[in-house]
This record gives sequence, C-alpha cells and structure tokens, in this order.
Amino acid sequence: MNKICKLFEIEYPIIQGGMIWCSGWELVSAVSNAGGLGLIGAGSMNPEILREHIQKTKAATNKPFGVNLPLLYKQIEEQIKVIIEEKVPIVFTSAGNPKKYTAYLKEHGIKVAHVIANTKFAIKCVEAGVDAIVAEGFEAGGHNGFEETTTMALIPLIRKTVDIPLIAAGGIACGKSMLAAISLGADGVQLGSRFVVSKESSAHKDFKQKIIETKEGETELILKKIVPVRLIKNTFYKEIKTLEVERAGIREIVEYLGKGRSKKGMFEGDISEGELEIGQVSANIDTVLSVSEIIKSMVTEYRKQLKQLPQL
Amino acid sequence: MNKICKLFEIEYPIIQGGMIWCSGWELVSAVSNAGGLGLIGAGSMNPEILREHIQKTKAATNKPFGVNLPLLYKQIEEQIKVIIEEKVPIVFTSAGNPKKYTAYLKEHGIKVAHVIANTKFAIKCVEAGVDAIVAEGFEAGGHNGFEETTTMALIPLIRKTVDIPLIAAGGIACGKSMLAAISLGADGVQLGSRFVVSKESSAHKDFKQKIIETKEGETELILKKIVPVRLIKNTFYKEIKTLEVERAGIREIVEYLGKGRSKKGMFEGDISEGELEIGQVSANIDTVLSVSEIIKSMVTEYRKQLKQLPQL
Repeated sequence: MNKICKLFEIEYPIIQGGMIWCSGWELVSAVSNAGGLGLIGAGSMNPEILREHIQKTKAATNKPFGVNLPLLYKQIEEQIKVIIEEKVPIVFTSAGNPKKYTAYLKEHGIKVAHVIANTKFAIKCVEAGVDAIVAEGFEAGGHNGFEETTTMALIPLIRKTVDIPLIAAGGIACGKSMLAAISLGADGVQLGSRFVVSKESSAHKDFKQKIIETKEGETELILKKIVPVRLIKNTFYKEIKTLEVERAGIREIVEYLGKGRSKKGMFEGDISEGELEIGQVSANIDTVLSVSEIIKSMVTEYRKQLKQLPQL
Repeated sequence: MNKICKLFEIEYPIIQGGMIWCSGWELVSAVSNAGGLGLIGAGSMNPEILREHIQKTKAATNKPFGVNLPLLYKQIEEQIKVIIEEKVPIVFTSAGNPKKYTAYLKEHGIKVAHVIANTKFAIKCVEAGVDAIVAEGFEAGGHNGFEETTTMALIPLIRKTVDIPLIAAGGIACGKSMLAAISLGADGVQLGSRFVVSKESSAHKDFKQKIIETKEGETELILKKIVPVRLIKNTFYKEIKTLEVERAGIREIVEYLGKGRSKKGMFEGDISEGELEIGQVSANIDTVLSVSEIIKSMVTEYRKQLKQLPQL
C-alpha cells in the first residue's frame, strides 16, 4: 500500500497545501471527502478562527484532515493549544525548525509532516522524528527555499538522502505531474495552486480569475535574501522589486509587506495592490473546477498515463 | 515505437546535449554507440574544427549522430556549409529563431530539432517545420529562457500546445528523472550535466571534479536580462554578479564575458576564473562514469522504477 495513504489513512496520496487565505473548512473538507488530505491554512488565522475552521471541518467530514502551521507566526503556541484541544489528527509544519514542536505534537498523538526545500532540512526532519517530509521545488507558489532547486532536481536528491514517506510539491497540478513526482521517488504529492482555483477555496473570485489568466514567466520568486516568495507580477510585486533593487533595508521591506497585503490580494480580490502568492503551474490552470472534479481528473489522468508509459 | 527513437533511428530516447567545450567526437560517438543520440557541440568550434569532429565521429560510429548549432555565432553560415558537405544527418539548433535555417537544412535531408523554453517558441518551431522540439527547464545548465519555467511546469504545457515529438531537458540525470519527464508528456530526454561528467567528455578533469563537489544552491541562473545562463558560483560568477548588481551596461558585461572564459573554465580547468556552465542536477552527480555505464544505468533504473509505480 502507498506509504502516504497508509500513514494518513486516505484513499489517494494527494495533499491539498494549507495555503493562507485560501484554505478554509469548505476546501479542506471537500478534499478529504474526495479521498485526499485537506489541510487548514492556519497561517492566516488567529487561534479562534482556527478553532472555528477545525470544528466546521469536523462537522463536514469524518475523513482525516490536518492543519498547516507555519512556525513563524507570533500566536504559534496558542494555535498548537487549539489543535491539541480539538484533537486534530495531522499537522504539517513549515517555515521553521522541525525540532521545535514535532516531539510535543507527537506526544499528543498527532502525525507530523514538515515542509523542506533541501537535503540539510530533510535530515533535520528525520532527526526530529517527523512522520513525513514535503519537499518543495522552486516552482511552487508562496514561501520557498533559498537554493532555488526545482522539483525535478530536488526529489531524487531527497529520496536518496532519507527513507521516510516523501511528498513532492511544486509544479504539480494534474495526473501527469503527479505520476512524474512519483517516478522521481515521491510517495505522494501536495498541490497548492490547483486547489486555490477550485470552487471550494476561499480565494477571492478575482484572484482565481487572475490565476487563470497568468501565463509563463508571469510569476517570480522574489525577496530571495529575506523570505523567498513566489508571486504574480502585479503592482504590489513591482513595488517590492523596486525596494529590492534599491537595496532597501530588510526592515523597510518587511514593514512594507506587513500591512495585510496578502489578505488584500488573495482574500479581498485586490489583484493589483495585493500580494498574490501562486506557483508557476498557474500557467497550466485554465478553469475553476470543483475539488471532486480536480481529484477525479487527476486520478483518471494518472491511470491513463501510467498505462501509456513506454517500455525501453 | 517511441517517436524519438523512430525519428532519429536510435535505440533509447536519450539525447546527449551538444554542450560547448565538452562535446567532441569521443563523447558523441560513445553516446551513439551506446544507443543514444550524440550531438557535437558546434558552439565552441570554428568550421574546420567542427569538420574534424564530424569526420572523427563518422569514423568512430556507424550510428546516427548530430550537431548542436547555437544560432548566435558569427560563423554560422560556414558551419552549416560544413554540416551539409559532411552529410550530418541531424541538427539541433538553439539560441535563435527556428524559422531561419530549418527549411534550408531540411532541403538537404537533415532532420532538425530546435531548443525552446516557452510555448511561444514551441509554436514557432511547428510553423518552421522542425521535426522535434527540445523543451528546456529553468534547472538546466548553460543558456536558458527568460521565463524561468521549470521542467515540471513546462513539459505538460508544451505537450498541450504542440503535437510533434518532444524532448525534455533540465534536471534529468538518471532513470527516475527520465521516467518523470516521459510521464509529463515528453517522448525523450536530453541530458547535459550527466554527460559532462563522463569519461569520454572533453571537459577538463578539474571541471568534472568541481561538478561532483557542487551541491544544492551552488549554481545560479544569472544575466537574466541579457543572456540567462546557469553557472557554478565561483570567482568568475561573483565578478559577473557584481557587474550585474551595479547595473553595468550590457556592453560592459558582454565585453567582460567575451574573453574565452568558458574555454578557460570548462576546457582548460580554471575552476575559479573560468565560466562553468552546469545544471542544478550537478548536486545529484557523484562520480565520473563511462557513457556506456550512464546509459545502461539509466535504462535499468527506468525499467525498475516503471515496474514499481503504484496503481491508484
């Protein structure tokens, strides 16, 4: 049996990335109900909102689900308290050191995966005792690693380095790319962008439309020396780029960033002045689909493509 | 039968990229003799040297081989003359417009492939009548596209756009990544970095050793506004980066570049002051192997991995 399906007790090794502003209970429960693993995006939720989404998810599905927890926010301890109180079965941590909370979460019976972008952190994950690793390539949307290693180059490297269940992320939005990721040595896949453009995601409709219109070369990984993040090249992006080129201090850029611009863009639909985090694979996303359609078409395409792979 | 094997009359759909300073007759004939397609790297050869390498290749193999021809060099017309006179069966063009020479080469019975990095040029290739496309991802070594699209994101997009034989390049160095590329919709693969670190490549032994030592994040795509090129981060790279950051004029940077620095690095082994073009996949290359070992292990790994791919 597939290691990821076994670990998380799900039907398909398809994880929905817990993206900020896009991953509320409707998306999460829809993904879990369709046989994948839905993750609540705690990065844009205060502890009480997080509790509400956990409770609503539990009411909407009896399948396993999880919470994605970026380790860089202030209210992390309260968020963890809520997760434990609400008996969330699975937590994906990211943007921090896996050694910090893994043992504590596991003591409470929670399965833990951690997101990394290089072999150094993959090894740290194993040392920390995580149950699975998400290895994220350069093409992924949102926050990313400093090395710029793409999914194609990264997955065989991580697979060679560690032996625990491995989830590939970055550039994956269809059955073909899922099959490719598994060919590279991953046990499962995590998709962000494709689920942002689903009927159930809480992304603003104008953000969804903007992603559909986004073509090759219209996202970029910026802020490479501070917090690398892949964005759509809109007005907000251009302002950040100007600050970057003019060698603004870290404080200046962070101050500029920290004004709820991601909420403004992704949740409120200001596609010009807001921050729009999305992956390169947006160039290959053409329609808003329901979660059920996304997962069904991925599985169908995976099976079809698997049958067609040539012998050598 | 595999479209690439049929088109080029080869056993395995494995192409050796025609890299400057590394791809002489010994490498090319070894690849073709091992069942792949070897390409002479004309980008670092004047017409007489090119003729010599073609003649030596013909003496060393009776299998199909080709020439990679970057369209940006001054002596391009003379190079084409040599290729036609010597009856080279296959030409891969790159770094230019496929409409320029495709028809002329095809009139002389030559099969033509062209290297691209976006859908716009893929369409141009079809209009120009090329026989196959090489789609190259961001992770590839040497010259590259402006969009930064990775192999994982690029191949499904190109496959959806055009229907002709498609070769994936960038991030591929083993049987797993070959299987992944074919899962994404490619018919074959082109490898550069892996063949640079072969016994038969004409890369300097110190360059080969440097590639073996190169880890994640130690190559970078630079000169993004002029001629994007992926290099190892050595002293030469740092000098270029300084010029870039200080917004040196294009002329100044090109002048600095144009002093045989690639020959110095890759052919003469000055790993500090020379230009070292290589892909991200260098992080996953650990040993110098013979071409025959490379191709055999790729095919073996491809077959093994194909058998292990899970049903969903």
